[in-house]
Amino acid sequence: MPAVITFGEIMLRLTSPGHQRFAQAPGFEITFGGAEANVAVMIAQLGGRAEYITRLPDNDIAQRAIDELRGLRVGVDGIVRGGDRIGVYYLEQGASQRAGKVIYDRAHSAIAEARPGDFDWKKIFSGAGWFHWSGITPALSAAAAALSAEACEAARAEGMTISFDMNYRTKLWTQAEAGAVLTPLMQHVDLCVCGLEEARGVLGIEGESEAEVAARLKERFGFRMVAMTQRHADSANQTRWGAMLFTETGVFTSARHDIAIVDRVGAGDSFTGALIFSLSRGDDPQRAIEFAVAASALKHTVPGDYNRVTLGEVETLAAGGHGGRVQR
Amino acid sequence: MPAVITFGEIMLRLTSPGHQRFAQAPGFEITFGGAEANVAVMIAQLGGRAEYITRLPDNDIAQRAIDELRGLRVGVDGIVRGGDRIGVYYLEQGASQRAGKVIYDRAHSAIAEARPGDFDWKKIFSGAGWFHWSGITPALSAAAAALSAEACEAARAEGMTISFDMNYRTKLWTQAEAGAVLTPLMQHVDLCVCGLEEARGVLGIEGESEAEVAARLKERFGFRMVAMTQRHADSANQTRWGAMLFTETGVFTSARHDIAIVDRVGAGDSFTGALIFSLSRGDDPQRAIEFAVAASALKHTVPGDYNRVTLGEVETLAAGGHGGRVQR
Amino acid sequence: MPAVITFGEIMLRLTSPGHQRFAQAPGFEITFGGAEANVAVMIAQLGGRAEYITRLPDNDIAQRAIDELRGLRVGVDGIVRGGDRIGVYYLEQGASQRAGKVIYDRAHSAIAEARPGDFDWKKIFSGAGWFHWSGITPALSAAAAALSAEACEAARAEGMTISFDMNYRTKLWTQAEAGAVLTPLMQHVDLCVCGLEEARGVLGIEGESEAEVAARLKERFGFRMVAMTQRHADSANQTRWGAMLFTETGVFTSARHDIAIVDRVGAGDSFTGALIFSLSRGDDPQRAIEFAVAASALKHTVPGDYNRVTLGEVETLAAGGHGGRVQR
Amino acid sequence: MPAVITFGEIMLRLTSPGHQRFAQAPGFEITFGGAEANVAVMIAQLGGRAEYITRLPDNDIAQRAIDELRGLRVGVDGIVRGGDRIGVYYLEQGASQRAGKVIYDRAHSAIAEARPGDFDWKKIFSGAGWFHWSGITPALSAAAAALSAEACEAARAEGMTISFDMNYRTKLWTQAEAGAVLTPLMQHVDLCVCGLEEARGVLGIEGESEAEVAARLKERFGFRMVAMTQRHADSANQTRWGAMLFTETGVFTSARHDIAIVDRVGAGDSFTGALIFSLSRGDDPQRAIEFAVAASALKHTVPGDYNRVTLGEVETLAAGGHGGRVQR
Amino acid sequence: MPAVITFGEIMLRLTSPGHQRFAQAPGFEITFGGAEANVAVMIAQLGGRAEYITRLPDNDIAQRAIDELRGLRVGVDGIVRGGDRIGVYYLEQGASQRAGKVIYDRAHSAIAEARPGDFDWKKIFSGAGWFHWSGITPALSAAAAALSAEACEAARAEGMTISFDMNYRTKLWTQAEAGAVLTPLMQHVDLCVCGLEEARGVLGIEGESEAEVAARLKERFGFRMVAMTQRHADSANQTRWGAMLFTETGVFTSARHDIAIVDRVGAGDSFTGALIFSLSRGDDPQRAIEFAVAASALKHTVPGDYNRVTLGEVETLAAGGHGGRVQR
Amino acid sequence: MPAVITFGEIMLRLTSPGHQRFAQAPGFEITFGGAEANVAVMIAQLGGRAEYITRLPDNDIAQRAIDELRGLRVGVDGIVRGGDRIGVYYLEQGASQRAGKVIYDRAHSAIAEARPGDFDWKKIFSGAGWFHWSGITPALSAAAAALSAEACEAARAEGMTISFDMNYRTKLWTQAEAGAVLTPLMQHVDLCVCGLEEARGVLGIEGESEAEVAARLKERFGFRMVAMTQRHADSANQTRWGAMLFTETGVFTSARHDIAIVDRVGAGDSFTGALIFSLSRGDDPQRAIEFAVAASALKHTVPGDYNRVTLGEVETLAAGGHGGRVQR
Repeated sequence: MPAVITFGEIMLRLTSPGHQRFAQAPGFEITFGGAEANVAVMIAQLGGRAEYITRLPDNDIAQRAIDELRGLRVGVDGIVRGGDRIGVYYLEQGASQRAGKVIYDRAHSAIAEARPGDFDWKKIFSGAGWFHWSGITPALSAAAAALSAEACEAARAEGMTISFDMNYRTKLWTQAEAGAVLTPLMQHVDLCVCGLEEARGVLGIEGESEAEVAARLKERFGFRMVAMTQRHADSANQTRWGAMLFTETGVFTSARHDIAIVDRVGAGDSFTGALIFSLSRGDDPQRAIEFAVAASALKHTVPGDYNRVTLGEVETLAAGGHGGRVQR
Repeated sequence: MPAVITFGEIMLRLTSPGHQRFAQAPGFEITFGGAEANVAVMIAQLGGRAEYITRLPDNDIAQRAIDELRGLRVGVDGIVRGGDRIGVYYLEQGASQRAGKVIYDRAHSAIAEARPGDFDWKKIFSGAGWFHWSGITPALSAAAAALSAEACEAARAEGMTISFDMNYRTKLWTQAEAGAVLTPLMQHVDLCVCGLEEARGVLGIEGESEAEVAARLKERFGFRMVAMTQRHADSANQTRWGAMLFTETGVFTSARHDIAIVDRVGAGDSFTGALIFSLSRGDDPQRAIEFAVAASALKHTVPGDYNRVTLGEVETLAAGGHGGRVQR
Repeated sequence: MPAVITFGEIMLRLTSPGHQRFAQAPGFEITFGGAEANVAVMIAQLGGRAEYITRLPDNDIAQRAIDELRGLRVGVDGIVRGGDRIGVYYLEQGASQRAGKVIYDRAHSAIAEARPGDFDWKKIFSGAGWFHWSGITPALSAAAAALSAEACEAARAEGMTISFDMNYRTKLWTQAEAGAVLTPLMQHVDLCVCGLEEARGVLGIEGESEAEVAARLKERFGFRMVAMTQRHADSANQTRWGAMLFTETGVFTSARHDIAIVDRVGAGDSFTGALIFSLSRGDDPQRAIEFAVAASALKHTVPGDYNRVTLGEVETLAAGGHGGRVQR
Repeated sequence: MPAVITFGEIMLRLTSPGHQRFAQAPGFEITFGGAEANVAVMIAQLGGRAEYITRLPDNDIAQRAIDELRGLRVGVDGIVRGGDRIGVYYLEQGASQRAGKVIYDRAHSAIAEARPGDFDWKKIFSGAGWFHWSGITPALSAAAAALSAEACEAARAEGMTISFDMNYRTKLWTQAEAGAVLTPLMQHVDLCVCGLEEARGVLGIEGESEAEVAARLKERFGFRMVAMTQRHADSANQTRWGAMLFTETGVFTSARHDIAIVDRVGAGDSFTGALIFSLSRGDDPQRAIEFAVAASALKHTVPGDYNRVTLGEVETLAAGGHGGRVQR
Repeated sequence: MPAVITFGEIMLRLTSPGHQRFAQAPGFEITFGGAEANVAVMIAQLGGRAEYITRLPDNDIAQRAIDELRGLRVGVDGIVRGGDRIGVYYLEQGASQRAGKVIYDRAHSAIAEARPGDFDWKKIFSGAGWFHWSGITPALSAAAAALSAEACEAARAEGMTISFDMNYRTKLWTQAEAGAVLTPLMQHVDLCVCGLEEARGVLGIEGESEAEVAARLKERFGFRMVAMTQRHADSANQTRWGAMLFTETGVFTSARHDIAIVDRVGAGDSFTGALIFSLSRGDDPQRAIEFAVAASALKHTVPGDYNRVTLGEVETLAAGGHGGRVQR
Repeated sequence: MPAVITFGEIMLRLTSPGHQRFAQAPGFEITFGGAEANVAVMIAQLGGRAEYITRLPDNDIAQRAIDELRGLRVGVDGIVRGGDRIGVYYLEQGASQRAGKVIYDRAHSAIAEARPGDFDWKKIFSGAGWFHWSGITPALSAAAAALSAEACEAARAEGMTISFDMNYRTKLWTQAEAGAVLTPLMQHVDLCVCGLEEARGVLGIEGESEAEVAARLKERFGFRMVAMTQRHADSANQTRWGAMLFTETGVFTSARHDIAIVDRVGAGDSFTGALIFSLSRGDDPQRAIEFAVAASALKHTVPGDYNRVTLGEVETLAAGGHGGRVQR
């Protein structure tokens, strides 16, 4: 399996422990995460080859982010050092009717202030087969949007498969702004992961059902595949989780999982990472969507952005799996 | 909105972490709480003006209780210093079939040993508009009961609105004792918060329904309003929570909230605080009961006695609210 | 009530806190446990007399295991010191679809390397009335199997009641191996605790229902009683728990409890311990099975292998119990 | 070696972790301690037999104190249950120029409200050889002082050796009050542990040197032995520690230990416990004072009131000992 | 005593616990601090009136900083809300030869992006008597430098006493840059706190001794007083600490304190705060410098930037003080 | 700089937090370490290339050890998977007169049960230039001793430089046993790190001074270099640390560092790793010994076996260094 390259921003995540609010926690738990890094970790944890590309300053906090990725088997040799700061996000986990809360402190980060030319894409993509990016990076700054375009073009030139996760963030830009920046880049995308509301609000594609929207997205932008995750009966503690994969050969829908949530952040990224992994190894669409949903169902049970699960655990759950009894 | 004065006992709360039993916890988490202090905090967190009145000894533990209240925007200038100790309560959170457990160590506290005359009620009530007390304070000691009466009379003399929460505690006194002490004080009460069983056991008022009991309470004691919270399907982890407000214009019942519980202590107090806040700002009864129930539903998700939520969070939930998704 | 003697292996249990995976926990929580020690603790916590017999090395970790048992009111004077190590097991709690995970590191433990003759059974059983062992000990080593047989014979010679919990562990031996070793020892057993699958796979007894299997077990091995716990709707967070007791006078089935799980390890052992306690004090079979199920339902809410509950808490739940409200 | 009986008050100790002040600690560490319980634990840890006598209420906190003592091999069968509360003391560890701080909340404890007749001294002392008490118990209440006298008389009647540690506490009574209560009880004391300032202020015995004061104490009260610990160069982090034992055969002075302090509370009690242990097993005075000082030097390095060290560790240090290298 | 107004930047401080390096800590301890906020807290803790002025964004982290200050009795009503972020600094405590380490992430903070006119200085200074600022604020941005000048001029116009602490930070600007910005502002300063190297490098004042440099500073800039703290024998664990105060009536030197360090950050600020407090209440220079040094010696023993000590503790140490024995 | 290969056993290290004894810690901190892994980490942290060779079982605990090494930039591709367990060692940090304590539970580990032939040394050494091993590995088992010999011969055949650290462990074997096994292997060693007592007791080389012993070691075994670390004034909290390097060109002695100890385990390994690094990059002997001593002095301040310091930090201290002031 050729390596997957993912590109974006990784942040220091500071989480108040347990159910404590920001106002009362004596400390923050330290982890790291970011949509594209989470995808890379998912692939590497499953046994695939993944490289993560970003720009990070030369300080101990950023170094820790890199060392942790390396420990998780993600390639980090392409990370460029420079800039002033690593982005930070503060996370307060929700509970029942109280929603989880994120405070972003990511402006002026090293990657937001990177410039086209900072990355040697030709070298980065050499020997790799898949490029993944998301709609967060272009939202960071005009330069980061230009970088995203540069990367897409370079990847296309190398003949790589390109996947894209919309990841629309209301705290970063408006839907109109997102649409203006992202629409011209959609031509480079093979696999698009997005939601119904994102398709409508950002890309202007409407429809009665997910399948219909996916078909129109394909028609409009030439995507080879569209994947959509689905949440229902959603509270801070509980969710029902599934997904749909639209391909040239049909619409494939996964089983639904009722999940008691430990940490939902990064669930979508683990879905995308597992989907890339599964498709890359040649799984058929039905198997791929079941696999990706199982992987991301398990993510909801793992603290931190990264999905620390094994291939075996995902396969077991995708296959119908044991319940939650202790294995001994 | 004129200030609300609440009066009672605040205790050091020592909680064994997570689901650990008293026998196995290596340490206790430190918070503070008490029915009337909890009401004051709720009002202050929502943006209202609240002052808390009690008597506390001159040591570092009591000082911390005061400083924490000040940090939470509760007025503490009326707190009298003296006495030997701050009351303590040990809390073990329940789980599933195992009930939560409280060990009170509050006898001989500074407020239980306060004497009529210790407080300058005229000065305390100057500029304020509402007085709140509960049935716990008279249960502490004969002197504290006399103090409660003294406060009620002073408040009445100042023309303040008076609210009262029954808060019957089996570990402090019998229903008969409570009835004997509380009944003569009911004449000073405008808004009475109590439960069906409390109305019957302590005040001797029976009825088929909550509305009927409320009507008889009004008739018997002259209350302008009666509020009752309602729990159903209740376990240590899960509850269904709602409330009823009986006023001169009718009976108003809130929506029900199914809650996964983080910390249920203080939920009733946050209900009362939010109800006072809502009524004080002129909300109509239906809106007030929805608001108070939403605030106290959120309390179940916040560790500690105090309800650390914002006005916006309460309004959102009262209005039907988003689910528990992370806001980002 | 005469003392109950239990014999087996106790291990250091190292648990990753909260829902953290082995890969990410900064530390392990320290507790101790083992099937037969858990039974002894249950009996002692309920107020019965229990002695625990094992072999442990002479180091501070093993000493702590012993001191903790003594603190929990279990007799430890019969524990023999020697050998090189105390067994260890690493526990990762599951969540939702992610199963709990145990890594055993118990080979070469002091008890696995004990030899027949290491224990003075006559002295150990003097003044006691009941002997409990499980199918784990014979699985540890040939010597431990021989020791188990030696203990059973000595107990029989002293006229003691003997109970046995199958506790089949796939990580220790195959069903065929277990069957070969355990079958000849079944003649010494009065009360057998096992599951349907264990009865079939290890002892070769099949049947349509639990009652039928129990009847055949009695017929085949001469058991006076057979107890079976029952799990349904089981996930890492949630279970439905009940049990059946088959005796000479009939089949007795308990109420079912829907449980939100805190820590399920040791639940079966607390069931067995409470059943022994209840039968020893002369409860009738229906009462005994309700009591044992209530005790073990509560175990699911207590962190650690040991069931830290009181007689009163069990009686209350067995009698239909209060819900999970805080008692104050 | 016959059992040593110690009698007094045990408290819940709530310590702010690390160097945190009361105002800032998110939690308290839970341990238990009290002068006489500490003595009993020291003796039991060294391998001697010790029983602890007190009165404690029937709640989970007090039960934990008892269970912990039993775990530490102290006999607890003579503890009487009753009363309302276990005393509490809050401890803030000092650092450098900042002194450690204790807040006592021990008034109205079960033992302070015990009454003569509550204890069956004849049964308690049966089979024991040594009785130890301290000057703290009579300071708790008039009843506790009467109980102390009752215990001394009963011990004397049984022909037991009696040791006494002055432990004067300015927060409990004045020197004059202490003198009035303690002086008549000194006739029952064989071994008196006190300081120069205590001898002068409480018992009215002055002198130029410790030896001179000890001689006069012996002359005045008939003590067979007087022991005095000595601190020099004392800060919250560092101390120089030694002791003197005055006996009928001379004055014996220990080596001095320069100690980096972890937790100094209970150091004096471990000295007394180790001295009793050493004298009881027949050590000569010089060996006894070296042993007791070594044991209590080690106490400074152990968190909590109790001196969790082994006989071997004390012997090694008393014999000149290795340094602090890791033993591997 | 009229209120002291301090103005500057407060940051979230994220400290790795104990002696852990940034690379290995599982979490960060949360406190807040900043040179001028630390001064305000010191004054308020001692019983003086202090108000803190800054600009902070409207998020939960900034709100916590404000609420904590209010809890500590610092006036916060003058704080302006706006901007995007609160500055952050990461702190790794040093040990022995390993120096403590600070990573600043304070660029683009709300106060760095404040503009002249954002603060109503006339209202802020109304009723106050002393204004304190430091050399950090002008280093943040040109706008912040202009704001500092604006504040000084307004304070001068109100006839307030103005104190200034150089606090030169190599990570924020060069000595030359500092000199260019700060020199014209020195005309507004009454009390200047700086070090020898700062005086030389930033203000261009040299001399053989501290007294000589102070005299020249006074001569050159018209300071009424110059204070200098002095460190010797300094390692991450240990320091020798004292100070000198130069006034119109002479040079006053404090006693030296040998300090075992818990947390040295903020020590200089607590010195300045205590000096302002002491001078404000009319202490003579010798008493003031002893008091300020004692207060700041104690700061070294308190975790966090803020000096959580009482007036009594400072007075005791300034008067020669007790050692570090537990007070009980 | 060509890669350094180190070979040996890595263990799970379970440390009781702070100064807690094994008997009282609620949990263990998780780190990993082992003499040769520690050397590899030191080299990698300094920027050198290091590969670590061992055998580890296929479970999550061992996987974590590997992933952590990879994160720390140590090559792990040569690690062989197999066997039943990873060794464990329990560590209790000492304090003052109380020595640190290690309990080894390493028997039957995967590496102790490895067999000659398990490692493809030719491939492992390809492209590398230095091989490091220690006297611990041959102590584990006869097979591990044979493996050590096999590795040395293969390294010699590849023309690699070989370093050896005696690391005599009394808990693993006697000096006589060590001597019998190690003496024949000394012919392969270029750089020998040992202590005076080890040289005498294990290798039978005596002498008046370190230089004399080193000279005789060189003469007897043909070592090109001998390095000896030196501890003085050693307690659990404090040590004086230096070293000597004997080479063909003379005896080089480092400066002495007075160290306040945070964690001394692994200090010797960091010395050896830094020495290898320094010699490998061509430093002269005096610079190398200063560098190695500085690196290992810093190790005493870092929790865990691994020396998490940077090249810059070591260079600064080796050059005379700043004190412990916070760098900001």
